[in-house]
Amino acid sequence: MFDKNVYIGRRRHMIEMMQAEGATGIAIFIGNVESPAQYRDNCYKFRQDSSWLYLFGIDEPRYAATIDIESGEQTIYADDADLDDIIWNGPTPSVASIAASVGIEKSAPYAEIDKVVARARELKREIHFLPATRQYNAMKIADLTGLKPAEVVSASKAGCPNASEALLRAVISMRLVKEDVEIEEIDKACILGQEMHTVARRGVKVGTIEQQIVGDMEGVALSKGWGVSFATILTQHGEVFHCHSHEMPIVPGKLLVIDAGVESNSHYASDFTRTYPTGGKYTQQQREIYQIVCDANEHAFKLTAPGVAYRDVHLSTVRGMLKGLKELDLVRGDVDEMVHEGIGGLFMPHGLGHNMGLDVHDMEDYGENLVGYDADQERSKQLGLGSLRMARRLEPGNIVTDEPGIYFIPALIRQWKADGTDKGMVNYDALESYMDFGGIRLEDDVLVTPDGARRLGGKRLPISPDDVEAAMTSE
Amino acid sequence: MFDKNVYIGRRRHMIEMMQAEGATGIAIFIGNVESPAQYRDNCYKFRQDSSWLYLFGIDEPRYAATIDIESGEQTIYADDADLDDIIWNGPTPSVASIAASVGIEKSAPYAEIDKVVARARELKREIHFLPATRQYNAMKIADLTGLKPAEVVSASKAGCPNASEALLRAVISMRLVKEDVEIEEIDKACILGQEMHTVARRGVKVGTIEQQIVGDMEGVALSKGWGVSFATILTQHGEVFHCHSHEMPIVPGKLLVIDAGVESNSHYASDFTRTYPTGGKYTQQQREIYQIVCDANEHAFKLTAPGVAYRDVHLSTVRGMLKGLKELDLVRGDVDEMVHEGIGGLFMPHGLGHNMGLDVHDMEDYGENLVGYDADQERSKQLGLGSLRMARRLEPGNIVTDEPGIYFIPALIRQWKADGTDKGMVNYDALESYMDFGGIRLEDDVLVTPDGARRLGGKRLPISPDDVEAAMTSE
Repeated sequence: MFDKNVYIGRRRHMIEMMQAEGATGIAIFIGNVESPAQYRDNCYKFRQDSSWLYLFGIDEPRYAATIDIESGEQTIYADDADLDDIIWNGPTPSVASIAASVGIEKSAPYAEIDKVVARARELKREIHFLPATRQYNAMKIADLTGLKPAEVVSASKAGCPNASEALLRAVISMRLVKEDVEIEEIDKACILGQEMHTVARRGVKVGTIEQQIVGDMEGVALSKGWGVSFATILTQHGEVFHCHSHEMPIVPGKLLVIDAGVESNSHYASDFTRTYPTGGKYTQQQREIYQIVCDANEHAFKLTAPGVAYRDVHLSTVRGMLKGLKELDLVRGDVDEMVHEGIGGLFMPHGLGHNMGLDVHDMEDYGENLVGYDADQERSKQLGLGSLRMARRLEPGNIVTDEPGIYFIPALIRQWKADGTDKGMVNYDALESYMDFGGIRLEDDVLVTPDGARRLGGKRLPISPDDVEAAMTSE
Repeated sequence: MFDKNVYIGRRRHMIEMMQAEGATGIAIFIGNVESPAQYRDNCYKFRQDSSWLYLFGIDEPRYAATIDIESGEQTIYADDADLDDIIWNGPTPSVASIAASVGIEKSAPYAEIDKVVARARELKREIHFLPATRQYNAMKIADLTGLKPAEVVSASKAGCPNASEALLRAVISMRLVKEDVEIEEIDKACILGQEMHTVARRGVKVGTIEQQIVGDMEGVALSKGWGVSFATILTQHGEVFHCHSHEMPIVPGKLLVIDAGVESNSHYASDFTRTYPTGGKYTQQQREIYQIVCDANEHAFKLTAPGVAYRDVHLSTVRGMLKGLKELDLVRGDVDEMVHEGIGGLFMPHGLGHNMGLDVHDMEDYGENLVGYDADQERSKQLGLGSLRMARRLEPGNIVTDEPGIYFIPALIRQWKADGTDKGMVNYDALESYMDFGGIRLEDDVLVTPDGARRLGGKRLPISPDDVEAAMTSE
């Protein structure tokens, strides 16, 4: 938890922005409750709601708050421990003292928020809320607002049309620009993420079961942080993006994609990807593609600077990769035309990067367009560019991932060939020898600085093919 | 996943038991869906519902099933992957083939269950369901049955009065008696749990941050299993039962309670507790209490056998511990009277043990009395005995934990002293020097065999004070 003035300042700023937009009424915030895994009292590790953490800092379940947008009055709702709780859970500070520790003087029992919001609705005051991520929060917000749970829950990337746009705009604009205290935490999360990836790299040996490496990595994340910032991707089928089964042994001659990050104890994320040759040496074919991706990662980093739209960084990076693929005769024709026709999407169906902060895909549930696109930017429908989560013109304090990749996805290649999507620009015959290639992705986390960009974390994880091979050989 | 005949046999047995009770209609089963952690598409590691795993084995989200209790007809409901899914998630087997792999020939899209249950309700057929643990399942069952979510969700230990008792009785009676294939899995989970505890013991060094040990332990659980079977308890305040903060460094002279278990990849649990002297040697005071708990663990194990009520094992074990505490002049008077008056609850407010299987507290959400008490056993209201989760007369195939403990809980001692709850049998003056003691718990997992009991897992974790000290010194 930061100093209470951090939270006081954020809430004041939020209120001012909403007032400036002419918003009235009250804003409600529902912190997360415990989430059962096996049965009700056997829960997953508690994870607080990210905007709750941002505005209120209190990392305890079953808290709620109201903020009066007009008067600025703020109230925390939660229940104090009773004697039974003290016997089983030990002595705990009072809700009033916890509220005071984040600069809020008024607190009340949890059930009280129902009455406060009911009164506000009687007075026809506006009720502002953020999209709910979890079922419980949706049910609670629905109860308070009179809407249905389905109407207040986020549809993920699409966000939630009933949520308060004034509140969303204020919170998004603040969370997009990281404060110094946040950058410090994210640097720490990145250093721990690099430590985790180093443990992983040392574990890459033919015959080892993938799950062993995953467990060793996640142990590092848990020993010094909250855990992993998302389900670890560790796969010899890098062309499958969401592969969470790890029962395979490491076999020689493959590429192992490891995409993983840490969430720090303060709940800031890191997110790195490296792609290793399972036998310690890239084949000639692997090295050619690897070098294109490695150059793309560097190219994107060099373009990252205030005022530049990350959409343009994406497009320029894709252009560079297509140029490299053309030199290998995997695509043919004019590179600019290829970019325009979206040919890059066949090889990189995802975007160059996303915002990162308290969520690894920062604020994804608030609607990707609201978070990642400027008002004048329209989202593409092309495969690849259409998946770009962060397109905005960059500002100092933005934190984005730089994660180009090249994949050979048999189902997609077959589909494009059948549909003629490539307009004659893909050399399908040459692709035949890549059908078992897998994929390569290389990812760093990047802070936009006043004069450019800085890669976050400590010493950079080896990334050039020579450095990777050298690191693997020496270990 | 076991051979399909295991699941076919279980479902047949369940139907027969329900038919024998005169049940009619259909039973509905709602498998778990993904559970969001930070935002909707960033989920906790998927955990399937335990009874779903038991009856259907399919370890994938968003599955449902119906079983016609009269005709025996069984249907699986889930959605096949579309081309988009295949591009992002790789090729997956069809729902029909997954259903067939657990012996069910009929499958339909997920939405179809709504129509099937609606038809059954039109025909006034009975709809059987198990208590819902998670909010999504509660909402789905509520939609299907016309009840409210709050009416179908489990109130944890109290269970859910609207759930089908015929279905509950059948499932509980089956899951209480473990099959050989299950015992094999639980033995594996125990071996991995012991490996995890060994890593933990080696990490106990003055100055180490508790979280480091927790991370190292959980890494073992993840590297060969699904993860931990519950939130790891690792605390120098063993008298606080639910202590999940681990930021303290290990300090000399304390007792470190480590209560942790593994959930195997097949989702069977283990659960062990050991209590270590943080500096490697127990003090005289610690050793005296430790020996009482260690003897209690052994005493309980020796009494564990078919036909014996675990309630009686609890009481006899508490009696032994009170006898030991009397020798230290911490309690005074007649030991049998102390047992009768529940004086043991001051030192051990929890029960001796619980059932263990696919859940570490097996089936806790089905109602502790229904699961852990025979029809003729009434639950005590005394502190300690009242918390006993497993009281039943034991049968071969039962798996229970044997986990006596002694704690010195200042808030509870003060309360008893103020209220005179001890009826003059507690020597509060002598307890003064134990106010900073903490607590000790020693736990093994035990299978009831035809002629007694067997401790599960491999080589037993060191437990006698001499063995523990020797292990810590040699490491």
